[in-house]
Amino acid sequence: MLNIGILGATGYAGEELIDILLKHKYARIAYLAAKIDQPDNISSIFPKFKGRIDLVCTEPKLDEIIAKCDLVFLALPHTQSFGIVPKLLKAGKRVIDLSADYRLKDIPVYEKFYKVVHADKDNVKKAVYGLPEFYREEIKAAKLIANPGCYPTAAILATAPVLISGLVEEDCIFIDAKSGVSGAGRRAVNDLMFTEVNENFKAYKVNVHQHMPEIDQELSGVSKKTIKTNFVPHLLPVNRGILETIYFKLKKSADQKQVLDIYKRFYKKEPFVRVLDEGKNPQLKDVVYTNYCDIAVNVDPEKKTLIVVAAIDNLKKGASGQAVQNMNIMHGFAESEGLV
Amino acid sequence: MLNIGILGATGYAGEELIDILLKHKYARIAYLAAKIDQPDNISSIFPKFKGRIDLVCTEPKLDEIIAKCDLVFLALPHTQSFGIVPKLLKAGKRVIDLSADYRLKDIPVYEKFYKVVHADKDNVKKAVYGLPEFYREEIKAAKLIANPGCYPTAAILATAPVLISGLVEEDCIFIDAKSGVSGAGRRAVNDLMFTEVNENFKAYKVNVHQHMPEIDQELSGVSKKTIKTNFVPHLLPVNRGILETIYFKLKKSADQKQVLDIYKRFYKKEPFVRVLDEGKNPQLKDVVYTNYCDIAVNVDPEKKTLIVVAAIDNLKKGASGQAVQNMNIMHGFAESEGLV
Amino acid sequence: MLNIGILGATGYAGEELIDILLKHKYARIAYLAAKIDQPDNISSIFPKFKGRIDLVCTEPKLDEIIAKCDLVFLALPHTQSFGIVPKLLKAGKRVIDLSADYRLKDIPVYEKFYKVVHADKDNVKKAVYGLPEFYREEIKAAKLIANPGCYPTAAILATAPVLISGLVEEDCIFIDAKSGVSGAGRRAVNDLMFTEVNENFKAYKVNVHQHMPEIDQELSGVSKKTIKTNFVPHLLPVNRGILETIYFKLKKSADQKQVLDIYKRFYKKEPFVRVLDEGKNPQLKDVVYTNYCDIAVNVDPEKKTLIVVAAIDNLKKGASGQAVQNMNIMHGFAESEGLV
Amino acid sequence: MLNIGILGATGYAGEELIDILLKHKYARIAYLAAKIDQPDNISSIFPKFKGRIDLVCTEPKLDEIIAKCDLVFLALPHTQSFGIVPKLLKAGKRVIDLSADYRLKDIPVYEKFYKVVHADKDNVKKAVYGLPEFYREEIKAAKLIANPGCYPTAAILATAPVLISGLVEEDCIFIDAKSGVSGAGRRAVNDLMFTEVNENFKAYKVNVHQHMPEIDQELSGVSKKTIKTNFVPHLLPVNRGILETIYFKLKKSADQKQVLDIYKRFYKKEPFVRVLDEGKNPQLKDVVYTNYCDIAVNVDPEKKTLIVVAAIDNLKKGASGQAVQNMNIMHGFAESEGLV
Repeated sequence: MLNIGILGATGYAGEELIDILLKHKYARIAYLAAKIDQPDNISSIFPKFKGRIDLVCTEPKLDEIIAKCDLVFLALPHTQSFGIVPKLLKAGKRVIDLSADYRLKDIPVYEKFYKVVHADKDNVKKAVYGLPEFYREEIKAAKLIANPGCYPTAAILATAPVLISGLVEEDCIFIDAKSGVSGAGRRAVNDLMFTEVNENFKAYKVNVHQHMPEIDQELSGVSKKTIKTNFVPHLLPVNRGILETIYFKLKKSADQKQVLDIYKRFYKKEPFVRVLDEGKNPQLKDVVYTNYCDIAVNVDPEKKTLIVVAAIDNLKKGASGQAVQNMNIMHGFAESEGLV
Repeated sequence: MLNIGILGATGYAGEELIDILLKHKYARIAYLAAKIDQPDNISSIFPKFKGRIDLVCTEPKLDEIIAKCDLVFLALPHTQSFGIVPKLLKAGKRVIDLSADYRLKDIPVYEKFYKVVHADKDNVKKAVYGLPEFYREEIKAAKLIANPGCYPTAAILATAPVLISGLVEEDCIFIDAKSGVSGAGRRAVNDLMFTEVNENFKAYKVNVHQHMPEIDQELSGVSKKTIKTNFVPHLLPVNRGILETIYFKLKKSADQKQVLDIYKRFYKKEPFVRVLDEGKNPQLKDVVYTNYCDIAVNVDPEKKTLIVVAAIDNLKKGASGQAVQNMNIMHGFAESEGLV
Repeated sequence: MLNIGILGATGYAGEELIDILLKHKYARIAYLAAKIDQPDNISSIFPKFKGRIDLVCTEPKLDEIIAKCDLVFLALPHTQSFGIVPKLLKAGKRVIDLSADYRLKDIPVYEKFYKVVHADKDNVKKAVYGLPEFYREEIKAAKLIANPGCYPTAAILATAPVLISGLVEEDCIFIDAKSGVSGAGRRAVNDLMFTEVNENFKAYKVNVHQHMPEIDQELSGVSKKTIKTNFVPHLLPVNRGILETIYFKLKKSADQKQVLDIYKRFYKKEPFVRVLDEGKNPQLKDVVYTNYCDIAVNVDPEKKTLIVVAAIDNLKKGASGQAVQNMNIMHGFAESEGLV
Repeated sequence: MLNIGILGATGYAGEELIDILLKHKYARIAYLAAKIDQPDNISSIFPKFKGRIDLVCTEPKLDEIIAKCDLVFLALPHTQSFGIVPKLLKAGKRVIDLSADYRLKDIPVYEKFYKVVHADKDNVKKAVYGLPEFYREEIKAAKLIANPGCYPTAAILATAPVLISGLVEEDCIFIDAKSGVSGAGRRAVNDLMFTEVNENFKAYKVNVHQHMPEIDQELSGVSKKTIKTNFVPHLLPVNRGILETIYFKLKKSADQKQVLDIYKRFYKKEPFVRVLDEGKNPQLKDVVYTNYCDIAVNVDPEKKTLIVVAAIDNLKKGASGQAVQNMNIMHGFAESEGLV
């Protein structure tokens, strides 16, 4: 059994990791920590785990983590991984970091969008971006995984195939993204109160969201061009799920079948990407509580436009599910273990 | 007092008309009809009206309508107005039709998108498109108003000023629209069941929705160019409200202030369009249960893109509120009577 | 015009008061104050009021309030009225306090349930409990109104008639109450986050809620007996509305008609209590955004039980609507002015 | 592997059975049928199953069911099991019926509350009521399981221990039940439309709901007294989950610890009943998507009342989860296989 530690166990991603790992055949949760007033059993913090796990969650202590764990998931607020990652790597542990701290290769861009100072630049170079559909081989050998953001996971999976194909204009990509509220993390702030979100809907951080440079970095990487998308996130009154509708201008006319084939071929061996048949479009209810990314393409040959729709569960494929998928790849387990 | 008839009183638009007109100083509801098993008091059909109105709703009878009403609102399913409008006009009544039947000037386009045969072509020419911000003078004298669709109201108000200004590419307009469920009408179908919509979100009728040609017709009219937008509606798990995020490519670089000024000037005298200050974007909760359309502009000078966000209540400015606004204009009442 | 001040203008009750008073013929909002970082226009704080009111909201200053207002609504957290009420009364102003501070005549009970010290005992005696259906005459002459709590308003209106009739056991009253989230006030706490409340439902403060002694005080008063109810509030995933299902044991068998007649007679002249006909029960959607309290009775003659169901909007009849109803009574306006 | 057939595969309970059984180690889905226009792959009907199961769902054919299945789940509307159960039993198949058709031992009561004629009285006697906490031994040997209703499951588990103890008055039991919408089945009717349920809440079938006699039958059985409860269901605007708040009058004073001990002892070996510690009460979010029933007791020694709160997922412990629990017991699998 692989011994697992989770830091940030009381956030949404941490809670989801516990839920997934309790069903995993080859992993056992050995250590739980979080910013917490006093140590408490995790099944008291989350009564839903009562009868399923009996383990105390404490403030993190490095020597205990090292003594008890083979692999550590970090589900911490941004910048908090910097003090821990170098020590865990030095102690020979493998680390999957769910924060943004090791995702952006361009440090000034990180510092601009997250409005903080980066304090572990060396390890950024070693970190592997944990999107299995593009970096599976690198993930196998990685010591440090930068687990992708929720919005970027859907945006990259939905955009890369057609961008690589060269069919679309590179300077005219509009990503209209809608996310459930758990994507914002467990934070008691006014904007996330029930009465503010329920029966409401809004755009926020129009073209300035911190996930935009992550999308641009990866799309630029796979397409070998400088990609600058337009990215507008919206807050949906649902607990879970992200749906993105992405608008492209075709360089020349193409038809539905042609573009659909590009996607079907691109993902034909992927266990967690489902390209939908013509005439169907994704919806949240088909992907929530699963690790799937559903994708559909809609071509208008006359207007020369392409509209791609993609949906994921922000806590599964968009965070903890993908993190466990990465763990499975790193350790040679079946890639879908614990995830279906 | 103006005597009002409402046909289709039991649908969402009809119910909303009753609610608005009960607060109107110069109008009284004189006649209510709907497709109904047997006549019933409207306050029994809608217990929320108990104590506020005491009037029986029946199957429509033309002679009664003509005897009792000065102005008739038709809030009927598409094609059902054809049999009634000519007779009401002949009897000298003014008619505000909330269906799509008289909106599209191009009959074959109507027949293609609504998949029905048009049975009153003559009156299409006489009908005035009831968007006061663009047709106020024509509305004053109109006998027949084609009250705009909910999606088109927001899309046209949000797009027309910048399109007229000539700043944006005409062949690259993407309208990402999200609507609450009452926009679909009161129909017991599987897709609108609570458990299908709640905690769900999806795109539907991608680039084939019947409101797209209405948007294109009006934008072509105001801009004197042939406009073909891309229009993707989505179903939001809320009762009321539409928010549209509209993506444009700028012909040449422009800045935020420049575009904002265009909108502020365009709507400066309009009682129901609020152009938001820089840095603010609309949200549903600021417009639901009101007749306002809130609009914000977001320019990215470097990427040369413009993102306009607009929000309305689909049952007020998107249907019954706008219908009463039109009635007020037709009869010389204060334009906001009953609406604030 | 009556000049109105609102203290606590940024809470839910304050926001609702503004919304109601903007439609009131004989009152104008002259002063707005709240605990606020810096003075700001209320239409900037609540964009929904843009175009409807142009008034700065500041920290409260007593001399300004006295100079500008004839009547002051206090919509403040508990205990904060103590420092203001005596001064306003001394200055000859009429005060409607929406907090619990002047509702409980028994000071130790107040201090036990609110876990604070009462600092204005003298004015408790002078305060009139602002439930018009029971204290209309006293309200006319009152200088200080203790506006009822939301749960008590529904519970008292639903229980008093049958309790006065003597038909039910006094020691076996179970009030199962369910409230929308705005009832908890505008507070950024974990329990009221969207993801905690949405798709969730729970009981809280079982038989220890601070509204229970208020219900007991009033029911004891009207029935001339010592009433101790059992009161269990629950948190509903909706923005607005309270529905209470109240269980009684009949002393002797009675039938539906007999009990229904008691209620119909009791409330026959009341403008805002609607007793439903046999076979109908209230639902939130018929009362939200209105000042009505809907009540239905369900008798089981065989089991000798009575089940009363009542519904109100917690921000209208349960708070600000009732406060304006009280204002209307105090000043001789039509009781429903601004409320329908 | 146990070969499973599901009839009624397209309803909520059927869909949930598929989801559970796809994770079950010892069972495989061999046959799916439903009332359906034309045969279709289940992963086309439910896109969420795409990639997880590849099986056509057809109209049921008896010979195929018998050829392919060892055990059959019937998730059909009431009365539709009558034509199938006798034939399946005769063919030696074991049957778990999720409808109410075999639950009520008193045929006239069934016919009164379901307003239909019972057409298979013989098998009612042989059917075992599938509530494992009370009938585990009988379930092991059963050929036909009458799987309990959702409301009764929570009500019986929450009420039986204290009723058996003799501490409470038998003629004064009030069950205030609240259910998510999936409890009503997948039916396109007006009352279950999104806009009717969302932001709404109501009581329905007050003291006449068809689950009441089922509760009374079982509580009478375990307590050896004639129990007539008062049962009021309410419709919650959530997809899943039932919470019941049950009110009792104590015969004599008792304290919290005493009653809590009764429950803790009663369920101490049960894998799916969790009795909460003092001061905690259940909430939906701790039980949805699980097979647990959470129960808490609240004693008021002074008022001599007991308030028990219980929560389940209506589709798991309230239907398909409990059905699989019964299957596991019948076949000697671990009782929680597929359920955690």
